[in-house]
Amino acid sequence: MTRLNPVGIVTKPRVPRALPVLKRVTALLRRRKIRYLPDPVTSHLLSEGRKYGDLAALARRAKLLLVLGGDGTLLGVARGIGAAPVPVMGVNLGKLGFLTETALEEIEGVLTNVLAGRFEVEERMMLQVDVVRGGKTLVSSRVLNDVVINKSALARILQLDLRIDGQFVAVYHADGLIVATPTGSTAYSLSAGGPIVHPAMKAFCITPICPHALTNRPLVVPSTVTIQVTLESDSPDVYCTLDGQVGLPLKAGDRLRVRRSPSGLRLVVPYPRNYFDVLRRKLRWGAR
Amino acid sequence: MTRLNPVGIVTKPRVPRALPVLKRVTALLRRRKIRYLPDPVTSHLLSEGRKYGDLAALARRAKLLLVLGGDGTLLGVARGIGAAPVPVMGVNLGKLGFLTETALEEIEGVLTNVLAGRFEVEERMMLQVDVVRGGKTLVSSRVLNDVVINKSALARILQLDLRIDGQFVAVYHADGLIVATPTGSTAYSLSAGGPIVHPAMKAFCITPICPHALTNRPLVVPSTVTIQVTLESDSPDVYCTLDGQVGLPLKAGDRLRVRRSPSGLRLVVPYPRNYFDVLRRKLRWGAR
Amino acid sequence: MTRLNPVGIVTKPRVPRALPVLKRVTALLRRRKIRYLPDPVTSHLLSEGRKYGDLAALARRAKLLLVLGGDGTLLGVARGIGAAPVPVMGVNLGKLGFLTETALEEIEGVLTNVLAGRFEVEERMMLQVDVVRGGKTLVSSRVLNDVVINKSALARILQLDLRIDGQFVAVYHADGLIVATPTGSTAYSLSAGGPIVHPAMKAFCITPICPHALTNRPLVVPSTVTIQVTLESDSPDVYCTLDGQVGLPLKAGDRLRVRRSPSGLRLVVPYPRNYFDVLRRKLRWGAR
Amino acid sequence: MTRLNPVGIVTKPRVPRALPVLKRVTALLRRRKIRYLPDPVTSHLLSEGRKYGDLAALARRAKLLLVLGGDGTLLGVARGIGAAPVPVMGVNLGKLGFLTETALEEIEGVLTNVLAGRFEVEERMMLQVDVVRGGKTLVSSRVLNDVVINKSALARILQLDLRIDGQFVAVYHADGLIVATPTGSTAYSLSAGGPIVHPAMKAFCITPICPHALTNRPLVVPSTVTIQVTLESDSPDVYCTLDGQVGLPLKAGDRLRVRRSPSGLRLVVPYPRNYFDVLRRKLRWGAR
Repeated sequence: MTRLNPVGIVTKPRVPRALPVLKRVTALLRRRKIRYLPDPVTSHLLSEGRKYGDLAALARRAKLLLVLGGDGTLLGVARGIGAAPVPVMGVNLGKLGFLTETALEEIEGVLTNVLAGRFEVEERMMLQVDVVRGGKTLVSSRVLNDVVINKSALARILQLDLRIDGQFVAVYHADGLIVATPTGSTAYSLSAGGPIVHPAMKAFCITPICPHALTNRPLVVPSTVTIQVTLESDSPDVYCTLDGQVGLPLKAGDRLRVRRSPSGLRLVVPYPRNYFDVLRRKLRWGAR
Repeated sequence: MTRLNPVGIVTKPRVPRALPVLKRVTALLRRRKIRYLPDPVTSHLLSEGRKYGDLAALARRAKLLLVLGGDGTLLGVARGIGAAPVPVMGVNLGKLGFLTETALEEIEGVLTNVLAGRFEVEERMMLQVDVVRGGKTLVSSRVLNDVVINKSALARILQLDLRIDGQFVAVYHADGLIVATPTGSTAYSLSAGGPIVHPAMKAFCITPICPHALTNRPLVVPSTVTIQVTLESDSPDVYCTLDGQVGLPLKAGDRLRVRRSPSGLRLVVPYPRNYFDVLRRKLRWGAR
Repeated sequence: MTRLNPVGIVTKPRVPRALPVLKRVTALLRRRKIRYLPDPVTSHLLSEGRKYGDLAALARRAKLLLVLGGDGTLLGVARGIGAAPVPVMGVNLGKLGFLTETALEEIEGVLTNVLAGRFEVEERMMLQVDVVRGGKTLVSSRVLNDVVINKSALARILQLDLRIDGQFVAVYHADGLIVATPTGSTAYSLSAGGPIVHPAMKAFCITPICPHALTNRPLVVPSTVTIQVTLESDSPDVYCTLDGQVGLPLKAGDRLRVRRSPSGLRLVVPYPRNYFDVLRRKLRWGAR
Repeated sequence: MTRLNPVGIVTKPRVPRALPVLKRVTALLRRRKIRYLPDPVTSHLLSEGRKYGDLAALARRAKLLLVLGGDGTLLGVARGIGAAPVPVMGVNLGKLGFLTETALEEIEGVLTNVLAGRFEVEERMMLQVDVVRGGKTLVSSRVLNDVVINKSALARILQLDLRIDGQFVAVYHADGLIVATPTGSTAYSLSAGGPIVHPAMKAFCITPICPHALTNRPLVVPSTVTIQVTLESDSPDVYCTLDGQVGLPLKAGDRLRVRRSPSGLRLVVPYPRNYFDVLRRKLRWGAR
């Protein structure tokens, strides 16, 4: 009897090839007498009449959360499970992801290893983001990859005042600004010119998007600080987005406050682990 | 009696400090018995009851067009005057511009030189942009700086198919794509990582915005080609913008066709001329 | 009887797999009753006792020059043949090159097409580089890719004064400066952050290497200008290199003068031709 | 009687304007009855017949080390004092430095504050660098800014194998590779495209110089790892440099091992302190 029982299963919606994968996974779990808790999409696909739970319920009850989808699916899970300490394992239904390293064809092998305790848990730092208007907090959320202030195509260039622990850093004239975790450093921040920050780091990566001043370079700061970004310019169609998935329109004077979240994501990674293998394959650095 | 008679005057709206400048300019013109044709803003500011013309009328009748404002004002004039061959001279009401090099304090001196024929005209290449949906052209415009396809903050990453003279170049996964003239290379394209292209060049600079593939680097191609960009992805809130001033929503399948406009902007530049002085001052490269 | 007779053959030294290729090529030529003129390496490999010529002799007499090697071999040929208008065709003995597009396995097919007149000649612009010390020209050479001023690892940061048509542009504080042709834009200049310039362009790409000032961005200027770079700082171990193959130590005060060479390289390219195919494969932009 | 007694003084050689500064500093110290220990340059300039000590002696005996010079002077001091915990205060004799923040005109004020205990000490992480050939350590040194493997102008592109804690990361084909501390991130690494890493971070920044693969981006990794770089290619004129000041020729197979030094530099910074003020002034980000 393994300790990772029950196993919660979250599946990306509208991916037909998920069903055969689910069948293989549930068969394996049944053989090992491990219960599984499906989320609504999984339950619907399996058509087993099994009672499903929402993400919060799964996170509370499961000892392992299996996420079938892509990095995007896993980002949503990371935000959705709150501070629940359940380890999360990502299986990519499509191409290799930074967070969903396990491929379909290796799922039985990896899952068998994991259930036998042959895995590591990487604690991935998350952001605690608050969006404040006047004295009022509009949104408060944990975020795994990044929080971004971005303008729409038609808006004028933004003016963003950045302060770190209350100290003035700069006013950016730019299309936007990204505050990323190490995990998020290989996502949007990388496209905007940011560095690759190792996921074991506890740090924020602050990357301007198309800055007017060419000397406005990406900035890596310790995770102990509080970051504050104030939208100074008055333009319609400016948004704050969380992991590129949740958006909120901003007005002049709105303020973003970013700190390290007290709890991160407990990401299950295969063992033995080489983060650089994934990096090399995703960025096509070529093997030896 | 000079050949540059009459002089059309275009003024940026809502800039209070424009009035004393206008008074100085019109006084100088009157002393030299040169007629001036005000655009509506200029006419309103001067309150002289002088009949005003729209931009097209000014461009047809004036022998010199004086633009008081910033680079943005001059961009609008360049698009608005169509193929009229009138030379255009920019005076910056604020800080030094790439297109509006003449400062307020030197306006009398420079204008005196220009009226005496001591100036050069730089032919600045312009784009002819057509936006095509199905078989139908939605928009057709001349553009001085750039045409940009850009997504809003909430839209998913775009897929843009680029072809040059019908030859497939690449599918960009990016926030957007800029097609800039040499004049536009020091504007948005520079912020997005593009090179500085000398304004005497006849070329397009194609610069992706935050491309997913790090190898998608800026591309400089001859102005003899036809560039075609097709929006492949289906996402709301994608726009085509002309010089960052005019926007048009795009749908999946929409196609941008960019060629060199048969006529460019005839920009009046002080004599003797060193383009690199402006560049050095704008980019703070430091003097000798 | 074809017009491309005789064919000169240049082979990269010390590449054992060149011999079977040579045998296939010479067999094909003999079948078509086309004479071939080997360079010393080719002659030595073939051991046919055939009299060989040096590069200049081959360039004068051959109607087509076949170069078996890599881009590096072709760069040397381009510099070595002087202004001879002989078309040059590159076959890569290893991996795909920007200049040596034809692969070993397709050599018979492509060569057959070329001998039948099914090919295009791209005129690749070359640089005329003069290195001047005091009033004296130390070196004068044609260059296909780039001329670079570069410091050694131990030298202090360089100060390089750049002038274009006599106009002061900037003093670069940098590890070095690259002046590249469009052909050279995908070589060293690209690694240093320069744009990709289409080979049909007539332009220089001036790219600083690790500039101290972050605003010192790559510059594309028309090929009609004269570029002058003066080494201002006094440091040992500073070199000027031509195509990365020929080096010359520089002293403070030395001056590089770069113009467009009156004659370029006549590069044979397969027909029909898509430059972007090569670019896409070399940069791994992915196909459709 | 202050605790910061005696004060060691190190002066950059061959800077005539150092003498009046020294006179002001020593007058201030004498008024406060604080002894000062001159290094050889300082002693020679002051001509007071005062016995001087070498850097190691000063570091052992002084309670505060005053460095008059530039960032370069301070880098040498940081390497030279070994693990001595003496706080070091930099005064710039020329332009503002990242490490020498105190300007000549404010020296009395700042020094008075420091002697009164109104200052902070920033612990700046340093590198422990070992260069290994065969089984033998050629060089072992502490470094404040960076260790660089770099090729000379004439050498072929390098192949550098990077491993982190024994895990293979990549083989870089590049002009070189920089391993920088957070302090060094604003020096050479920034010119090569690296991010700005806050000096309170404990991290290494690994930045390739002109990498052939455009996806080889800067990497930030935790200071707990061991970095190993092996020179794979065989080329003359390849060097390892420490802080850009000390050089060592490398051969194929040579190995660089970089760890965090157990002791860092105790840098005296004015109080209250805003690191971003210096950054903003050095990078000309503009004030509010």
